[in-house]
Amino acid sequence: MSLDLLKRIRIVLVEPTHPGNIGSVARAMKNMGLSRLELVAPRGFPGPEATARAANATDILDAARVHRDLEPALEGATLIVGTSARTRRIPWPLVDPRACAEQSMAELQAAEDAQVALLFGRESRGLTNEELHRCHVHLHIPTAGEYASLNLAMAVQVVCYEMLLATGDGDIPPAEETDVAPAEDFERFFEHLQQALVDIGFFDPTNPRQMMTRLRRMFTRIRPDRMEIGMLRGILTDMQRTAARANRD
Amino acid sequence: MSLDLLKRIRIVLVEPTHPGNIGSVARAMKNMGLSRLELVAPRGFPGPEATARAANATDILDAARVHRDLEPALEGATLIVGTSARTRRIPWPLVDPRACAEQSMAELQAAEDAQVALLFGRESRGLTNEELHRCHVHLHIPTAGEYASLNLAMAVQVVCYEMLLATGDGDIPPAEETDVAPAEDFERFFEHLQQALVDIGFFDPTNPRQMMTRLRRMFTRIRPDRMEIGMLRGILTDMQRTAARANRD
Repeated sequence: MSLDLLKRIRIVLVEPTHPGNIGSVARAMKNMGLSRLELVAPRGFPGPEATARAANATDILDAARVHRDLEPALEGATLIVGTSARTRRIPWPLVDPRACAEQSMAELQAAEDAQVALLFGRESRGLTNEELHRCHVHLHIPTAGEYASLNLAMAVQVVCYEMLLATGDGDIPPAEETDVAPAEDFERFFEHLQQALVDIGFFDPTNPRQMMTRLRRMFTRIRPDRMEIGMLRGILTDMQRTAARANRD
Repeated sequence: MSLDLLKRIRIVLVEPTHPGNIGSVARAMKNMGLSRLELVAPRGFPGPEATARAANATDILDAARVHRDLEPALEGATLIVGTSARTRRIPWPLVDPRACAEQSMAELQAAEDAQVALLFGRESRGLTNEELHRCHVHLHIPTAGEYASLNLAMAVQVVCYEMLLATGDGDIPPAEETDVAPAEDFERFFEHLQQALVDIGFFDPTNPRQMMTRLRRMFTRIRPDRMEIGMLRGILTDMQRTAARANRD
């Protein structure tokens, strides 16, 4: 998939009352690769508060379309998703942000003219029942329950984050450092370690107890890379040199 | 797992400069079930801006501890995670929020006294290299690349959201409506539909074309529940009654 799919997802804010939130929404969208913002009867927009909070995403505010009613904001949308803070207000297909992102990507990949509209309601009372009935799917953002009302822009952030992840195309970090030393290097290091510990008189092979096992467990957990193995073996070599000098004297 | 694990995760804000962000962080934490906030040399805290933005999470602000330096904010932490906007600044174990949440839960489940500290840096320039070196793991929130700098509170929101999901214990909606009608009810409905369409003269079994296949595809996609099947069969019954009357006349 690709980030291009995100261009066919629009965020629709229905009657937002705090212009700062509109700016924060624009920034969250741009961070996650979305660009199309539709505003239905916003209060105090455009204005300095929205602009300030948008930071480097004022291009999204400039391109945002303002509507009096919901209907024109939905034009061309084939999948309409409505966010709801209540999980069981009306019996309707209900998804969390991750499932919503997967469904949206499937929709967008299935047809080139498919478009997704994500509706977010008023800060104070969300979407009306009538607005929710216009939606194919309802979206609920999980919370810990005690305090279930997310800030509007925070809700947009979470949903856009899942959309970006669902494209599989964000700058997601690699799972793990890949330069971990191969097993044979590790074994040679370990033999070296044991010999050096014998040389300095720390380890007595005739009375091993669990010493080498414990050391192995520790170094295995560290998963040293090639450079670190080299460094450790340098230390061991100097330990042995020192031991040789000490034994000579 | 349980929401209780979240009590052993602390959010550490290092030198936050916008008090509004501190309030937004508190709200995001409470929405997602986290409660422990540590502030290192915050500017303008406590104050009205933080309180206003915290909304119903002022209890988290009240309980927040303020420190001059980072060190006391990390006391007791067994896993220290530092957020970084750059993916490859220094070679260090690097995770995204989802992997970070999984690792944190594993840490917290492994020992009762395990504690996780999540560090977030200054709005302007993040964590210093020295601060990042104190961390076991670096956390990078994926972005679309063009504009990679998330607002501080937004970053906290995304990470806390993943933490809540990783507990498996948020009020996550069920995957799907479960009252979908069983196959045999659907088949009986479908036979009824075909007969009713014959009765009203819409469908000619001697010239079926793809009519029933198309209708089946459509109704299968709808996945009607029991109530809807009952309703549809009521319509079909009335269609047939009307057809019978029409044919009698």
